[in-house]
Amino acid sequence: MTTYSAIDVITTKRDGGTLSDDAITWLFDAYMRGEVADEQMSSLLMAIFFNGMAPGELRTWTDRMIASGERLDLSGLSRPTVDKHSTGGVGDKISLILAPLVAACGAAVPQLSGRGLGHTGGTLDKLESIPGWRANLSNDEIRDQLEKVGAVICATGETLAPVDRRLYALRDVTATVESIPLISSSIMSKKIAEGTGALVLDVKVGRGAFIKDLERARELATTMVDLGTSHGVATVAQLTNMNAPLGRAVGNALEVSESVDVLRGAGPHDVRELTLALARLMVELVGLDVDPEKKLDDGSAYDVYCHMIEAQGGNSDATLPVAKFRETVPAPRAGIVASLDALCIGVAAWRLGAGRAKKEDPVSAAAGVLCLVREGDEVEAKQPLFELHADDFEHLVRGHDTITDAFVLGDEPVSASPLLIERIKK
Amino acid sequence: MTTYSAIDVITTKRDGGTLSDDAITWLFDAYMRGEVADEQMSSLLMAIFFNGMAPGELRTWTDRMIASGERLDLSGLSRPTVDKHSTGGVGDKISLILAPLVAACGAAVPQLSGRGLGHTGGTLDKLESIPGWRANLSNDEIRDQLEKVGAVICATGETLAPVDRRLYALRDVTATVESIPLISSSIMSKKIAEGTGALVLDVKVGRGAFIKDLERARELATTMVDLGTSHGVATVAQLTNMNAPLGRAVGNALEVSESVDVLRGAGPHDVRELTLALARLMVELVGLDVDPEKKLDDGSAYDVYCHMIEAQGGNSDATLPVAKFRETVPAPRAGIVASLDALCIGVAAWRLGAGRAKKEDPVSAAAGVLCLVREGDEVEAKQPLFELHADDFEHLVRGHDTITDAFVLGDEPVSASPLLIERIKK
Repeated sequence: MTTYSAIDVITTKRDGGTLSDDAITWLFDAYMRGEVADEQMSSLLMAIFFNGMAPGELRTWTDRMIASGERLDLSGLSRPTVDKHSTGGVGDKISLILAPLVAACGAAVPQLSGRGLGHTGGTLDKLESIPGWRANLSNDEIRDQLEKVGAVICATGETLAPVDRRLYALRDVTATVESIPLISSSIMSKKIAEGTGALVLDVKVGRGAFIKDLERARELATTMVDLGTSHGVATVAQLTNMNAPLGRAVGNALEVSESVDVLRGAGPHDVRELTLALARLMVELVGLDVDPEKKLDDGSAYDVYCHMIEAQGGNSDATLPVAKFRETVPAPRAGIVASLDALCIGVAAWRLGAGRAKKEDPVSAAAGVLCLVREGDEVEAKQPLFELHADDFEHLVRGHDTITDAFVLGDEPVSASPLLIERIKK
Repeated sequence: MTTYSAIDVITTKRDGGTLSDDAITWLFDAYMRGEVADEQMSSLLMAIFFNGMAPGELRTWTDRMIASGERLDLSGLSRPTVDKHSTGGVGDKISLILAPLVAACGAAVPQLSGRGLGHTGGTLDKLESIPGWRANLSNDEIRDQLEKVGAVICATGETLAPVDRRLYALRDVTATVESIPLISSSIMSKKIAEGTGALVLDVKVGRGAFIKDLERARELATTMVDLGTSHGVATVAQLTNMNAPLGRAVGNALEVSESVDVLRGAGPHDVRELTLALARLMVELVGLDVDPEKKLDDGSAYDVYCHMIEAQGGNSDATLPVAKFRETVPAPRAGIVASLDALCIGVAAWRLGAGRAKKEDPVSAAAGVLCLVREGDEVEAKQPLFELHADDFEHLVRGHDTITDAFVLGDEPVSASPLLIERIKK
């Protein structure tokens, strides 16, 4: 095999070239052995940020990330496997409802997830607000629960795509997060390694998403669909609107509570609509002839939810943590809610204590924001717009300072923009 | 003062923005305190590679590199100070002749230098082939020798521009060397910190230089002249041809020997021509009304050379190290030397043992190449073209394998390209 050097690999990428399969294989091996230094990898990541990657190059890059660790084998299950990944939105609690719902339709949903960093919350953080629930399962426990319950939401193990784990940490501190090939390979290496047979991607676009622009969202979706398909995972992407938060609740326990509302047939309309749209895609991908709406309305999805929580030690009946401080934010005048800014509300929830600034930080289970109005609502002067929840006064003040920029009041009627934008498949 | 974060600084640069003076001040302070990590600095350097720097931003960047350490004060000397810096060429021994020559004209030349890395040799490596000579002087010794002898060639102390020392090492392993703002700030921070009042830059262009292209050489020269001038150092750049090696000798002791030949009124014409051209610029910059050619021909430059070597413990009469193995490379046929490739000859000398691959490697004093012909020379079949010098057989073979690509024989007369290309001043 040819000998490579980190400097040559960086130079190739820097000067607009394409890394060969062998060069990528060498790079990740050498990086994991400690022969390529973090400072070399980070300058390579920045060169990729500027010059992108060719499709075949990115496929190999992703493939070698998967090959750096274990790939779960879920082929022995009696149900077809299908998962969903969302690129992250404010108030996005869809996974909590969707995984049990699709399991109730007859599939197995191996939802291996991460924790939140920044203004979009993490699924694990939300579920950890349920007393007793644990995020870490062994591979045998995952397979067992998928067979018996049909749905697992748990932490991505350290044995899956370990190169990605290191690159992700590095990108986070070197301003190389916002790169389509780097985002795609990070997401898809983990999803492919978890062993799912099919995958639906919820790619968020708008003010509260990390991609604001439809064209870039399409590029990201197309890139991920290509990576999934080329690795034998049937993959479809749904572009969805993330200008305003999804549902009313933003924060860990608040979102669990809203999810249970939806599972019990109530809850905000948009959360129900998106969950059902994604469920239909997932069910269709694995060829099951079941209507998810029926499984939601007849209580079977809620039953699976309770089993799923209890299988991981959680008490699905337990009272969720409640914040010590609550405050409502009134409308400064009468008018029509012209817009709600998901990013701003996400940052407010984060400052109230729901999110973390550093990986090691704890999160508050109870903190967050309830949005009491929707875009297009007519409000009276002093009518409450938001309810803020925090464990201490300092966080409450910081969240309050942020939320005042989170809405625009107007005088003209506004029509809400559609939630489902477009679908991308191979 | 505003608080900065490394990620914000990198993001600003990555997205094409300009770093504020305060941000640069914070960055270098935090880097030297260990609060900005090498992987963050290297991704910033790669972003600078792609997006460049605005003139004012680069001035501040350079200024803070200087401010990270000591700036020598040479204002108390009875002579005006003037230095020369070359961007590095093959066979470039000009400093060894120029420093004593300009001192003989009445100036003080504080030539603080580095060691060679790669195919262009380092001035200190060359002088270290002289028995007893030492490169490390204290600041007091530098000042004292400048006053008494007029010329010093010594190592750049660790107290000068310490940020540059770390950035230089980082750039070397992260493929961020070839960036005009990074090259300019690295060179100029050290030259300004050494305390010289005036500076002539020899910017090499061509096959054997790290800049192959005239337009980029102009950009580098203009950038460095601007940095020098804005820091109160009268600076002029001379662009010179580096397609073929300078002179006949490439290698440490071989180049010292050729320099002494020129100081004694003999030696290759091109070495003499370039030395005199640069000496005239230096003398003119500090307003001395002396003709350097006279000082070369009347032996006063050679006298200063001997004093300079002896002041640093060297024996200027000592026999220089001689290689154990010598071999000549004959012309494969009769013809006219259409070209000599400086890069290839530099690499051959490096493989013969004259250069180092890693900073810690030793160099051979005796190894190198003597070019026995010049571009345009008519040669007979089997006439020796090169003489290779090495301390062991293995190096000899490696050098020999390289040198066979270092020349082109033709049948048409060729006219040598001019050595002096153009001059750039503010």
